[in-house]
Amino acid sequence: MTVLVFGTIGLDTIETPFGKKQDILGGSAIHAAVASSFYAATAIVGVAGSDFPQAHLDFLKSRQIDVSGIQILPGETFRWSGYYEFDMNQAHTRDTRLNVYSLFDPKVPAKHKSAEYVFLANLDPELQLKILDQMEKPKLVAMDTMDYWINNKREALHQVIKKVDFVLMNDGEARQFMETPNIPIAAARLLKLGAKAVIIKKGEHGALLFTNDSHFSAPSYPQDLLRDPTGAGDSFAGGFMGFLAKTGDLSEKNIRRAIIVGSVMASFNVEDFSLDRMKRLKLKEVIGRFDEFRRFSEFEAISAAHLS
Amino acid sequence: MTVLVFGTIGLDTIETPFGKKQDILGGSAIHAAVASSFYAATAIVGVAGSDFPQAHLDFLKSRQIDVSGIQILPGETFRWSGYYEFDMNQAHTRDTRLNVYSLFDPKVPAKHKSAEYVFLANLDPELQLKILDQMEKPKLVAMDTMDYWINNKREALHQVIKKVDFVLMNDGEARQFMETPNIPIAAARLLKLGAKAVIIKKGEHGALLFTNDSHFSAPSYPQDLLRDPTGAGDSFAGGFMGFLAKTGDLSEKNIRRAIIVGSVMASFNVEDFSLDRMKRLKLKEVIGRFDEFRRFSEFEAISAAHLS
Repeated sequence: MTVLVFGTIGLDTIETPFGKKQDILGGSAIHAAVASSFYAATAIVGVAGSDFPQAHLDFLKSRQIDVSGIQILPGETFRWSGYYEFDMNQAHTRDTRLNVYSLFDPKVPAKHKSAEYVFLANLDPELQLKILDQMEKPKLVAMDTMDYWINNKREALHQVIKKVDFVLMNDGEARQFMETPNIPIAAARLLKLGAKAVIIKKGEHGALLFTNDSHFSAPSYPQDLLRDPTGAGDSFAGGFMGFLAKTGDLSEKNIRRAIIVGSVMASFNVEDFSLDRMKRLKLKEVIGRFDEFRRFSEFEAISAAHLS
Repeated sequence: MTVLVFGTIGLDTIETPFGKKQDILGGSAIHAAVASSFYAATAIVGVAGSDFPQAHLDFLKSRQIDVSGIQILPGETFRWSGYYEFDMNQAHTRDTRLNVYSLFDPKVPAKHKSAEYVFLANLDPELQLKILDQMEKPKLVAMDTMDYWINNKREALHQVIKKVDFVLMNDGEARQFMETPNIPIAAARLLKLGAKAVIIKKGEHGALLFTNDSHFSAPSYPQDLLRDPTGAGDSFAGGFMGFLAKTGDLSEKNIRRAIIVGSVMASFNVEDFSLDRMKRLKLKEVIGRFDEFRRFSEFEAISAAHLS
């Protein structure tokens, strides 16, 4: 099964307490597609400028990622510049330049219109809708967003949420969008808007799944090695979608596993800048860390006998 | 096995989006002892003023809590006044009056010096040391603290940590005390100070256990009913200690269960002001919610077969 990923293809300039890197490979579609490619055939739809290094395209191809949906337009590639202070849970944006994305009319290549798994990574919800309109009959569509679109394209965001199966947001975004500090209440409101399931990404605190009749709390990972949090949410989503596409199993049992796979991919991604850790990552390491997540979160039942 | 709880006995004035209550029963020792009393024989050491209502002492006795270690001194009971805004994760203090605690020289009643489980709830670390000095040979000592003592009695706090088995702190306190934003690193530093285990309480995000050779991440509870967060950390600690005392089992397996029991007690305590929810709480409900914690956090293994 193919995972189609739509989002930004970017060159990031990032400063963390561990160093400063200029114009490194980034973007929501890139982080998501690379994580997905560990599990399933993955294709990207997006746009890059004529300054986008061929080496990055070669890297994507080396991961068997289909880049035929990446348009190369005259002009500069999307750029994000930001920094993280001592408390690396919070990204601070210095500058965002849409560049070629400002002219972009997204086109899904004919061969990918039948893709069964679609991830609409963080980008203008009006563009997300344009992608959805071109898809034939996806089995599962998931979307992500950010505060900028919540503030500026609220109505289009509502339209996207109505049309997708899974809404992925971080906790701050869900609180802001649904205007409540309470995460379970925010999730309930997102479900009411039409999403079948809501996944709240909480960074260092793990992730939560809410559906109309169930709940799952995925454990946090004790991340002592954290060099660059950029792309954590996108690798989470990519690992999640790729694992579901690979297994083709949308039972809640398997969705829970997919959330842990996403958490594992995010936990590796933040260990180094850009995609550097993912370039070295082996599936054996993924399975090892998945097992760690299990060992870290298991506990046994109690019964009335314990208490009387 | 008896749990001896040392901490504040207070009258709280609390404002949350759900109402304002004046001079209601509170204090770290009270919340902890009441939670503990669901599982084990529990005794309080502390001090109250002559204005402390007899009805509160009667309530404690009705829960089989031994109040012979509560001194009643002339003067006013400890008072805390605070409020919670829209985001109820953060308490804002309006006023703290030590009142009779400022004259207090804590004495452990002779019959309780042999108590095997000791919880030093949040209070001046110099007083916590005075209690420890009076205990004969406790099997397990746990302590809690707050930002005020981290800022003002850092040295005494170090002394307490050296002498206890379990350090309980919330995530903000651990980060502040150990001067790092990274929770696993803060926990590792607390272990280095001499604690055998560190439990980080993260409020809505669950709790973490760190020892020198293991880690446990306890799930969050989807708390949509949250009227007054005051005492959540103390009920957590009380439930934790009471369950350990009841079962007498200090294996990691049972410590993990005790952390979930603590989380369950905290999740009930915040559903109403003061001890109001605890007054109505039944053990059957505790077991039911413990099972919910299990259902909310279970996931199955993956194997290489899933991924190839």
